Amino acid sequence: MTTTRRYTLTISCPDRSGIIAAVTGFIAQHGGFIVEASYHTEHEEQRFFMRQEIRADSLPFDAEEFRRRFAALAQEFGMDWQLYDSAIKKRLVVLVSKQDHCLDDLLHRWRSGELLVDIPCVISNHEDLRSFVEWHSIPFVHVDMGGDKEEAFQHIAALFEEHRGDAMVLARFMQILPPWLCQRYPGRVINIHHSFLPSFVGAKPYHQAYQRGVKLIGATCHYVTDELDAGPIIEQDTVRIDHGDTVDDLVRYGRDIEKTVLSRGLRYHVEDRVLVCGNKTIVFR
Amino acid sequence: MTTTRRYTLTISCPDRSGIIAAVTGFIAQHGGFIVEASYHTEHEEQRFFMRQEIRADSLPFDAEEFRRRFAALAQEFGMDWQLYDSAIKKRLVVLVSKQDHCLDDLLHRWRSGELLVDIPCVISNHEDLRSFVEWHSIPFVHVDMGGDKEEAFQHIAALFEEHRGDAMVLARFMQILPPWLCQRYPGRVINIHHSFLPSFVGAKPYHQAYQRGVKLIGATCHYVTDELDAGPIIEQDTVRIDHGDTVDDLVRYGRDIEKTVLSRGLRYHVEDRVLVCGNKTIVFR
Amino acid sequence: MTTTRRYTLTISCPDRSGIIAAVTGFIAQHGGFIVEASYHTEHEEQRFFMRQEIRADSLPFDAEEFRRRFAALAQEFGMDWQLYDSAIKKRLVVLVSKQDHCLDDLLHRWRSGELLVDIPCVISNHEDLRSFVEWHSIPFVHVDMGGDKEEAFQHIAALFEEHRGDAMVLARFMQILPPWLCQRYPGRVINIHHSFLPSFVGAKPYHQAYQRGVKLIGATCHYVTDELDAGPIIEQDTVRIDHGDTVDDLVRYGRDIEKTVLSRGLRYHVEDRVLVCGNKTIVFR
Amino acid sequence: MTTTRRYTLTISCPDRSGIIAAVTGFIAQHGGFIVEASYHTEHEEQRFFMRQEIRADSLPFDAEEFRRRFAALAQEFGMDWQLYDSAIKKRLVVLVSKQDHCLDDLLHRWRSGELLVDIPCVISNHEDLRSFVEWHSIPFVHVDMGGDKEEAFQHIAALFEEHRGDAMVLARFMQILPPWLCQRYPGRVINIHHSFLPSFVGAKPYHQAYQRGVKLIGATCHYVTDELDAGPIIEQDTVRIDHGDTVDDLVRYGRDIEKTVLSRGLRYHVEDRVLVCGNKTIVFR
Repeated sequence: MTTTRRYTLTISCPDRSGIIAAVTGFIAQHGGFIVEASYHTEHEEQRFFMRQEIRADSLPFDAEEFRRRFAALAQEFGMDWQLYDSAIKKRLVVLVSKQDHCLDDLLHRWRSGELLVDIPCVISNHEDLRSFVEWHSIPFVHVDMGGDKEEAFQHIAALFEEHRGDAMVLARFMQILPPWLCQRYPGRVINIHHSFLPSFVGAKPYHQAYQRGVKLIGATCHYVTDELDAGPIIEQDTVRIDHGDTVDDLVRYGRDIEKTVLSRGLRYHVEDRVLVCGNKTIVFR
Repeated sequence: MTTTRRYTLTISCPDRSGIIAAVTGFIAQHGGFIVEASYHTEHEEQRFFMRQEIRADSLPFDAEEFRRRFAALAQEFGMDWQLYDSAIKKRLVVLVSKQDHCLDDLLHRWRSGELLVDIPCVISNHEDLRSFVEWHSIPFVHVDMGGDKEEAFQHIAALFEEHRGDAMVLARFMQILPPWLCQRYPGRVINIHHSFLPSFVGAKPYHQAYQRGVKLIGATCHYVTDELDAGPIIEQDTVRIDHGDTVDDLVRYGRDIEKTVLSRGLRYHVEDRVLVCGNKTIVFR
Repeated sequence: MTTTRRYTLTISCPDRSGIIAAVTGFIAQHGGFIVEASYHTEHEEQRFFMRQEIRADSLPFDAEEFRRRFAALAQEFGMDWQLYDSAIKKRLVVLVSKQDHCLDDLLHRWRSGELLVDIPCVISNHEDLRSFVEWHSIPFVHVDMGGDKEEAFQHIAALFEEHRGDAMVLARFMQILPPWLCQRYPGRVINIHHSFLPSFVGAKPYHQAYQRGVKLIGATCHYVTDELDAGPIIEQDTVRIDHGDTVDDLVRYGRDIEKTVLSRGLRYHVEDRVLVCGNKTIVFR
Repeated sequence: MTTTRRYTLTISCPDRSGIIAAVTGFIAQHGGFIVEASYHTEHEEQRFFMRQEIRADSLPFDAEEFRRRFAALAQEFGMDWQLYDSAIKKRLVVLVSKQDHCLDDLLHRWRSGELLVDIPCVISNHEDLRSFVEWHSIPFVHVDMGGDKEEAFQHIAALFEEHRGDAMVLARFMQILPPWLCQRYPGRVINIHHSFLPSFVGAKPYHQAYQRGVKLIGATCHYVTDELDAGPIIEQDTVRIDHGDTVDDLVRYGRDIEKTVLSRGLRYHVEDRVLVCGNKTIVFR
């Protein structure tokens, strides 16, 4: 919960020696003060990943100028890179159905200032949560999923564009997104699945877990791809259950773990801590 | 780690009112002192499960007489039941391959008196662990799995019988038991699988976990049935990993969670805390 | 989250043989169907504790008649006992200050039907949370703590009585209750303390934890007694931190663990799962 | 479990901009390949900490030459620094009493090659563990603590010197070291304490935990200083208990958490991941 403005530089490129020196040398040369630095090499891919947080006021130029000057170095090393400015909040469009535990958790973190984002609108296929969302002065848009689903998803995509969303958060939306929508926003659609993936893909995971007699249940926050529940995993956790727990108890325990896992995953995403490599994530916590 | 002798009565029967009263009435009528009592109803099956520990010295008769007198009541309620005497230690035949972390853990608990069992022999398809096992004055039997597997398993079954084994413990044995062997000892062959089942069934689960990019790995202690890695689960647990961990790191973290989960599962089994219901377990911790 | 009406019978009495048989015999004699049964002996105190849940519709009489008939048996065994009726919801009076994470969590569980209680009013020494509470149609009462504290606490006690509160929940109230108030409601005032007690008693526990360099922080839900942060513990949990976390990060992680621990502790209390023995609790989960 | 030879460079110095650039520039200039890099600023102290692992074969010189060349840079930034060579194993002298769970765990990790250290000798004030230690072909030295304690500790210090110990590991040694011994080896004497410090300092922590009625117990691995159980904490963890657990059960659960916490703490120490800052540690996991 820092208030100092920061630039966050994330990079991935082919691995070789001298990358850290080149990047930190560039930053030091302009007097930049590194607040946090993380590195990782994905050995199989021979690919290097890094993330630097730099105090904005330690640099003699702004983000735009940083990007301009850094481009040559980036090209030399064949970098995929981004520079984020902490003063520019990410815009999350939240999709929900009837269950509100994830939404309640997310909106509380937002209104308490813990989650530093803008929420331009909440979209739902039900009217149930309108009053709660609007109490927060956040626009609530009802999109009917009972009729033409394709049309409904076109509407959702249009709303996302219109509100200039950076990420689409499926906070127990309970609808399967069409492939074209998943493909349009790679690494930008975040789902919370109510099982410890890859166990119990698809519908009714708590029923599946109950039938199998597992001793722990879990939840998974992941980027959505066009393969159901198979996208890159951002965060997971589990909680112990026992033979005395009914499916209803599993659902109840599950709500808590879903909230926790989604909020952690979102935080990592919002703070630009997640880099995707193939179907895996590097999370610089 | 109790030293008082106890009888443990485990029961499963169709659910109805009055079962607890009848059983505890029978015990009280003979002055029996209940040390621990646990109950559970499996609602879908309408089946009732219970476990009572009774101080042996509070009863005017021995286990044999207890069984004789209890039989009528048991028949009235249609009970499957067992009475165990804590003075009679269970005999565990342990099967290992080359990796010794589970064996080391198990033998330490045994020699420190934490795990109150007899270990009549350790069987292995390799010679590597002979010296360590024999230092404990436990017979070590090498059974070659490189030739005729069927013959090798016949040998293992014969050794199990000869040593009057109560349970066969697969402490990272790394060999798939033939169906006839699984079927011969239902609820008596205990395996530790190095994944959080039902994820990553079969070979090389840590490689599978690494490829999928999960954020936690786990281990599962279960009864072996003729369907691979699909028997009733006794105990599971998970441990957090991250993107920096290689497959070797996963294997290393995994060893610790395997030891923990196997030792807990074995303890529950040895203390007659596990009752099987279909493909699930009730574990009265 | 069961909807069947139940009677919950909690008992503590000197330990001897035959208690379970007598109680379950009484229930069975009237056709009572036991849904859940838990027992515990506190050996040092030679005291026995039990909790039975009985399906209300399995008995031919109501709670009042149950109590009348059970009294003789209770007297014979010297029992402290209570019979609770699940149809009569407990009334929680919630006290808060400015921080709303525990309140938000609690009200969400209440409005979603997970926490089956009545909340007749929320009391606060600040106005900040009025709108949020009133959105739930729950009366919000501001009690000024800036002037005469004794008077303020008299006011709080009066409100608690007026609203016929069963329990007073200090959901990060941040004020130390006077001894007379603690003594008036033993086992009925529930606090969430933001440390893993007995570590870091009193003010600013996260700062204390940061200074000491612990690797985990925690939270404790306990009954309030007149000794600060020393009452019987109902529930605790911990979460891992590391050297990179500032005090602000600890506070942030702490909020999540506080919510979790308070909600679990409250649930146990509300479901009559907590029995107090000296300064310890038996929690029949 | 890496097999590539590495140099590990650990540094602490006053914080300022350009440190990372200078150090990584020095490494890059000689073609050094950084395998792992970690940074941390302790804000209150305005002190910077870093750790780099460099592939030995990527550098054109050996560790001695590295140290010679790096000295000028180190002086310029006022660095406290060390360069470790992974080919030179640390020598751990292990002190035990009668309980062997930590020793068994440690020796298993050593003989399986997981813990890459030398163990020149095990010292004990009892003879009980001689046979087990000697089975590993490790010298076992009995030092009587029943007589003159000062003399005994002089003997221990002499043994440590004679065996050129890098670290002294108190694996449940159960004796309080004299201040002069603690002061002689700052950051080199590692203890496992059987509680979650700062709770339950001193003797019989499990009894203290039982009396207080906590719902979790823990263990703490820390560097020993001359203030009892108050040195810099390296690692901690907790495990859930409940009202049914006796002190003996706590001791049993405790053994497992002690083993885990000690082995993790030792690993961090052995891999030069722990830097001390005042009475706190930075652990670059």
